Amino acid sequence: MEKDENTLTFLIVPNKRERENEKPYAYSSLPSLPSSHSATSMEQNNQVEEEQIVTPWEVSAEKGGKIDYDKLIDKFGCQRLDQSLVDRVARLTGRPPHVFLRRGVFFAHRDFSDLLDAYERGEKFYLYTGRGPSSEALHLGHLVPFMFTKYLQDAFKVPLVIQLTDDEKCMWKNLTVEESQRLARENAKDIIACGFDVSRTFIFSDFDYVGGSFYKNMVKIAKCVTYNKVVGIFGFSGEDHIGKVSFPPVQAAPSFPSSFPHLFSEKDNLRCLIPCAIDQDPYFRMTRDVAPRIGYHKPALIESSFFPALQGDTGKMSASDPNSAIYVTDSAKDIKNKVNRYAFSGGQDSVENHRKYGANLEVDIPIKYLGFFLDDDAELEHIRTEYGAGRLLTGEVKKRLVDLLTDLVETHKRARAAVTDEMVDAFMAVRPLPNMFS
Amino acid sequence: MEKDENTLTFLIVPNKRERENEKPYAYSSLPSLPSSHSATSMEQNNQVEEEQIVTPWEVSAEKGGKIDYDKLIDKFGCQRLDQSLVDRVARLTGRPPHVFLRRGVFFAHRDFSDLLDAYERGEKFYLYTGRGPSSEALHLGHLVPFMFTKYLQDAFKVPLVIQLTDDEKCMWKNLTVEESQRLARENAKDIIACGFDVSRTFIFSDFDYVGGSFYKNMVKIAKCVTYNKVVGIFGFSGEDHIGKVSFPPVQAAPSFPSSFPHLFSEKDNLRCLIPCAIDQDPYFRMTRDVAPRIGYHKPALIESSFFPALQGDTGKMSASDPNSAIYVTDSAKDIKNKVNRYAFSGGQDSVENHRKYGANLEVDIPIKYLGFFLDDDAELEHIRTEYGAGRLLTGEVKKRLVDLLTDLVETHKRARAAVTDEMVDAFMAVRPLPNMFS
Repeated sequence: MEKDENTLTFLIVPNKRERENEKPYAYSSLPSLPSSHSATSMEQNNQVEEEQIVTPWEVSAEKGGKIDYDKLIDKFGCQRLDQSLVDRVARLTGRPPHVFLRRGVFFAHRDFSDLLDAYERGEKFYLYTGRGPSSEALHLGHLVPFMFTKYLQDAFKVPLVIQLTDDEKCMWKNLTVEESQRLARENAKDIIACGFDVSRTFIFSDFDYVGGSFYKNMVKIAKCVTYNKVVGIFGFSGEDHIGKVSFPPVQAAPSFPSSFPHLFSEKDNLRCLIPCAIDQDPYFRMTRDVAPRIGYHKPALIESSFFPALQGDTGKMSASDPNSAIYVTDSAKDIKNKVNRYAFSGGQDSVENHRKYGANLEVDIPIKYLGFFLDDDAELEHIRTEYGAGRLLTGEVKKRLVDLLTDLVETHKRARAAVTDEMVDAFMAVRPLPNMFS
Repeated sequence: MEKDENTLTFLIVPNKRERENEKPYAYSSLPSLPSSHSATSMEQNNQVEEEQIVTPWEVSAEKGGKIDYDKLIDKFGCQRLDQSLVDRVARLTGRPPHVFLRRGVFFAHRDFSDLLDAYERGEKFYLYTGRGPSSEALHLGHLVPFMFTKYLQDAFKVPLVIQLTDDEKCMWKNLTVEESQRLARENAKDIIACGFDVSRTFIFSDFDYVGGSFYKNMVKIAKCVTYNKVVGIFGFSGEDHIGKVSFPPVQAAPSFPSSFPHLFSEKDNLRCLIPCAIDQDPYFRMTRDVAPRIGYHKPALIESSFFPALQGDTGKMSASDPNSAIYVTDSAKDIKNKVNRYAFSGGQDSVENHRKYGANLEVDIPIKYLGFFLDDDAELEHIRTEYGAGRLLTGEVKKRLVDLLTDLVETHKRARAAVTDEMVDAFMAVRPLPNMFS
């Protein structure tokens, strides 16, 4: 008998402080990268009063600490994505693993190895990711899952569905239906700008698409989940509105191929792989619990850590502070200013001390950001060595980061400017994708 | 400031026995007709231990008693539909009031007089009723709201939307999506057989129709209702599945014209009148509470009492017992047999005593059924007088009822046999109704 994955619940504070700009699936906030997965980290944390909290709406580390990803894997009951799996992806796809795989940004999974087994046997799968459109401007953290999903789509040559949860944002935020829908379309342009292949990609907003087969799956899922269970998983209270209680099946439904009859008709056995940040795990733990009861494969997951704020990964998050993140709308001057003024440095307080002691790479945000976006392993290693030894100064490392991010953001801006309304319509049209597996 | 109608909650038993064949909107069960609305009935009931329970899923009288409709009106906070309103309907429509109005079957309302005020000012409205398709064969009680709604449609010349809550039945009952949808179509045939005008009537099933503008209204409604509130209104428990918690907005949404853009585009101010049995009041109390917060008129309601079981209105209900009701599929022989064997009689135990004391009309089921379906006031009065005086025998009254019901059922059967799949498609097509007000 299958173990009920939802027995692995986790601490919910009764009056949780909701993050001000939460987004499902994606890098919902700006906490830390997993800098240490040592076995001792759990023991060290035994003394800490406040437990860490990771839900789709709140991410906070234990008091004064960082997110403990080992503990999270333990609590959630997912598996670590180890080097052998990374190597296997490289072998199966015939291309080098993505930087996010090499650097451990995507660090956890559920049934990803089973999915690869099936893929090796010749079984196809589809990708599912999404975003809650709560703001117009995306920051770099928001791009991470889409950059990775594009890599997966290209590497495995599989179809992809992208859910824009405008209904969720309308319900959680003080947004009108119309504003949520407008943001969904604006965000779709940024997503399309990541380079997805229109012949394999279906983007949909819930307000547009919920209904028919999708709604039938919502109902089937809802039948299998008690209120007590969603309280255990998501920590809702009696004073939360029922829209919140109704929403988990909406995010669960795209995990099942029959929610997309125009794509996967007669393919009820098709497997699904969900790339997402680990704060979305609760939704899919629920989904995986329900799946066999309604006749589907459990979706496989590949889960990332969080993208750090410029101010560092130990402080209190301030997602509402525009200076805590680089946005894809920032100018070159903004980027230079933000990195130079706000990016937390592990360098020493004087050039003399820096030359003498070197930088503390563990807390240095420019090094962490370079770890996400500098594809050249040799160059990154060189910078880490030289900076750690004090031969490179903070200003020099920041300059390299500013150049890299400026290039990345300018490239994104150009791509986004080229996305027309017609292209958005094309990606969002409910249509078959005859060449999605070729 | 508007009074919150939902503060008028009512008793819910923790482990309620669900009625085996509940249907929303309609005569969900077979309890008693309101035989007495005297002011003393509440006082008499003060000694009774178990309070009466009326929810969309359970109707039970106080121990050993009948449903106390005065108490219900008090608890729910609706208004009595008095003779002056009945007279006003007759005057406004230029036709005699329907037998269900004359006999007090529809006995309560919310804002019906306001709706008539608006109608007199030249404002139009639309009708909304529905049914939960949980069984193939309807009984006479199920027909009552549809017979009345057809009268309202003809008398006021207004459009009508009929919701078939196949999603609800799939979730509450152990029905598959496919079986719920099949039952919805079968039930649609019985509804169409009541004689609705296809040029003014849109029938929809939730599995077919939920989505788009309808789903947007579901989300807007859900945002305004807390979990604690639905627990207060409907009595859900933590072990109920979240489909139940999600459903009330589905039944609320048709109360708002924007849920039907193909019918009521640019008519957000259109009023809605809902004919239903009073056990559906909780849904619409919730709906009325939400309406002004999302910019709509509160729907008006016209509410009926329950249709009595053949065995009488004081005993325990047994909706699963086919002998407790006359079904529209019953043969003439079935009807004769059921009425003669099971219809509870108020006649005396011997002809001698009957001639001497007369029948007790208050408990006599044939008299109650004749009250529903014998349109001729003079004949009914004659039967009541003669039977009450002992000059008519039970067998004679039952014979009159058998003839009446046989005729009614045979007429329905013929009408239903004439309903083709094409007609069902026509009623259920999402289409404009250009002549719906003419």
